[in-house]
Amino acid sequence: MPPSPDKEPLLSETSRVEAFSDGVFAIIITLLVLEIHRPSIIPGKLAVELLEAWPSYLSYALAFLYVGIIWLNHHALFKQIHKVDLPLNCINLGGLGMTSLIPFPTGVMADAFRSGTLDDQRAAVVLYALIAGLMSAAWLPIFPYLNRHRYLISPKTKPDIMAAQLVRPVMGVLSYGVAALAGWFGHPLLAIGLFVFMVGYHAFTSQGINPRTP
Amino acid sequence: MPPSPDKEPLLSETSRVEAFSDGVFAIIITLLVLEIHRPSIIPGKLAVELLEAWPSYLSYALAFLYVGIIWLNHHALFKQIHKVDLPLNCINLGGLGMTSLIPFPTGVMADAFRSGTLDDQRAAVVLYALIAGLMSAAWLPIFPYLNRHRYLISPKTKPDIMAAQLVRPVMGVLSYGVAALAGWFGHPLLAIGLFVFMVGYHAFTSQGINPRTP
Amino acid sequence: MPPSPDKEPLLSETSRVEAFSDGVFAIIITLLVLEIHRPSIIPGKLAVELLEAWPSYLSYALAFLYVGIIWLNHHALFKQIHKVDLPLNCINLGGLGMTSLIPFPTGVMADAFRSGTLDDQRAAVVLYALIAGLMSAAWLPIFPYLNRHRYLISPKTKPDIMAAQLVRPVMGVLSYGVAALAGWFGHPLLAIGLFVFMVGYHAFTSQGINPRTP
Amino acid sequence: MPPSPDKEPLLSETSRVEAFSDGVFAIIITLLVLEIHRPSIIPGKLAVELLEAWPSYLSYALAFLYVGIIWLNHHALFKQIHKVDLPLNCINLGGLGMTSLIPFPTGVMADAFRSGTLDDQRAAVVLYALIAGLMSAAWLPIFPYLNRHRYLISPKTKPDIMAAQLVRPVMGVLSYGVAALAGWFGHPLLAIGLFVFMVGYHAFTSQGINPRTP
Repeated sequence: MPPSPDKEPLLSETSRVEAFSDGVFAIIITLLVLEIHRPSIIPGKLAVELLEAWPSYLSYALAFLYVGIIWLNHHALFKQIHKVDLPLNCINLGGLGMTSLIPFPTGVMADAFRSGTLDDQRAAVVLYALIAGLMSAAWLPIFPYLNRHRYLISPKTKPDIMAAQLVRPVMGVLSYGVAALAGWFGHPLLAIGLFVFMVGYHAFTSQGINPRTP
Repeated sequence: MPPSPDKEPLLSETSRVEAFSDGVFAIIITLLVLEIHRPSIIPGKLAVELLEAWPSYLSYALAFLYVGIIWLNHHALFKQIHKVDLPLNCINLGGLGMTSLIPFPTGVMADAFRSGTLDDQRAAVVLYALIAGLMSAAWLPIFPYLNRHRYLISPKTKPDIMAAQLVRPVMGVLSYGVAALAGWFGHPLLAIGLFVFMVGYHAFTSQGINPRTP
Repeated sequence: MPPSPDKEPLLSETSRVEAFSDGVFAIIITLLVLEIHRPSIIPGKLAVELLEAWPSYLSYALAFLYVGIIWLNHHALFKQIHKVDLPLNCINLGGLGMTSLIPFPTGVMADAFRSGTLDDQRAAVVLYALIAGLMSAAWLPIFPYLNRHRYLISPKTKPDIMAAQLVRPVMGVLSYGVAALAGWFGHPLLAIGLFVFMVGYHAFTSQGINPRTP
Repeated sequence: MPPSPDKEPLLSETSRVEAFSDGVFAIIITLLVLEIHRPSIIPGKLAVELLEAWPSYLSYALAFLYVGIIWLNHHALFKQIHKVDLPLNCINLGGLGMTSLIPFPTGVMADAFRSGTLDDQRAAVVLYALIAGLMSAAWLPIFPYLNRHRYLISPKTKPDIMAAQLVRPVMGVLSYGVAALAGWFGHPLLAIGLFVFMVGYHAFTSQGINPRTP
């Protein structure tokens, strides 16, 4: 289905969306460092305090990997996108908005594991799961939309590729839902195990999933 | 009216203005997350505190939508701009300057609704209305300027399109003025209703308004 | 003087330097908003506290104009630069480094005028003058360097244009030196008058100074 | 060794990786200014407090030079890279992740030298050495990888150039290891001397090391 000729002027190149998205990802990834707990100087205690801040370092590493891999996914997806229109711009903005929230639950989680009770840790992992799940949900509409508007996709791309990618955000929504339940009713570490697993899943599928050939 | 030949060298491509503006928008939109109230850990109270921070989340969502839609407007406008000169650069800088203030009243508003009195909420919505109104005012001169200097516009653009866009920032200035009055003399929630309405208005008109055909 | 053929591969396009510089300017200009004093909520006092924060708003406006105009200068200069080599990259980095310090003295100055004594205000304007003077000094070497290595300049540029620009950073160094002395031994407001004057001077000369035709 | 034809679609241009990396570097370099200790206003004491904050200024200068020179190295390396694939993207992300940590140990080091004991200073230089060493380690795999996948390199590049660059990150890992030991068991200033030396080394070799011609 080609676009109707009077809609042509509403399409634009992907360059500016990519530049804006790259800016957002670059800032998120560098803002994470501001969430690392900087010990207040109690004279003579710095070495101990730095060691005790290990949950900050782990959560920085997790969040950095997570955002880095979201960037890799975005990069691989937009390589196949040829033109953008307004709805695609809006879906992309929504995804970026959820992604840019990630430093917040990351910092809360690090705080909870450094100085909170088990209940605080439960609350923190549920918050993280909620935001990560919403982030997956925000990317849900992009694949059906691209599948229905194939003139937005690069001509070299296989026709069914977009429909096949829908499983990736669906998997995200489900896994983060399970993680929230497991972290709240089971143990927070169960949730963190699922968070690490999902980072691996998104890394593994970042170049896209091949459509099944019937 | 073509530019005089000795002024030609003072025109430049839009690429660097777009890159700079994209950078500014990307940073504003990600700085918003720093305005989300991060609860200090009182052991065992994290879940409650996270729930009580709901005004932070709402104001993040509002501000994110707002800045995202300003970006969509900017994107659609600059698609029609062909060349930039010094006055256009200055108008754009002014608009970016007002836009980059938005995280400040957003944070103040969230604080006021979380822990302030009704008077504080009045003051906070007036501050927000003032800055949002100044932001609309900062974009006022761009449409008359482009209308008078048509060699800056892409040749494919309809001749009267820029004159027709002036209503958009005028609408902004008026609405935010009304919101300030309604928030101060009436109730803060009236102002917030208008803020949400204006985000919708800017979203709806982001691709431009068609000039009336007589 | 053309470059020796074996040095050719060490020249590169200006695109990446421009993108990096745009990123730095965009971030500086948006970080300024973080320096605006956000009042802590004392219930019922927000309106008064917001009004009392006026030095923050003025210094935001001054710093925003200042950085915006440095960007305009940078934009106009790099439009005339054709290729970059390592020394030019280093001079540019040095200038960016001094520019990115500007949020620091801006915040200190706003604090001093909001809640400091006259001596604090003296110290704050001297700090500002020092950093602004160093920023002018950091751009000093770029014009002689470009004048000596004309193969880095766009062929359309007039041959003597770079030598004629040297007066701009020299004027900056001198004026900020005078401002530091006037602010310390005279009155801080004298220094601030000179700061405003220099923003105007850089705005007025942002497109370059025409070389005198003898 | 050319890439197998079915892998061709997985290669992409370097433009988006460069834009993302430039964004990250630009943000790191400007976030450093947030680490400068901003004195709280004790009326009448600002001048003294500003002077006492000298470790902040020195560590800002060191960190700025360091990140600026990493950018110069990155710039010179990517000028020779023609295409990127997934592993190269991942190596680059890892390097950026370690680089974006630099504001953290820089701030800790400035705090330790302003108000900590000798033991705190030891801990701070070890932290800095650890992160700088990990940053060098993160860039280790890039040269062997490019050497084995020469179709990613620009055709104008000499064939052995990548293998010859491996010495640069190796030198980093070793020197920062020595600095950690010297700072902990010897004196923190020994470590700082090595940090300054390494900044010089990376500046000196930023354009690459010529392979030995046998």
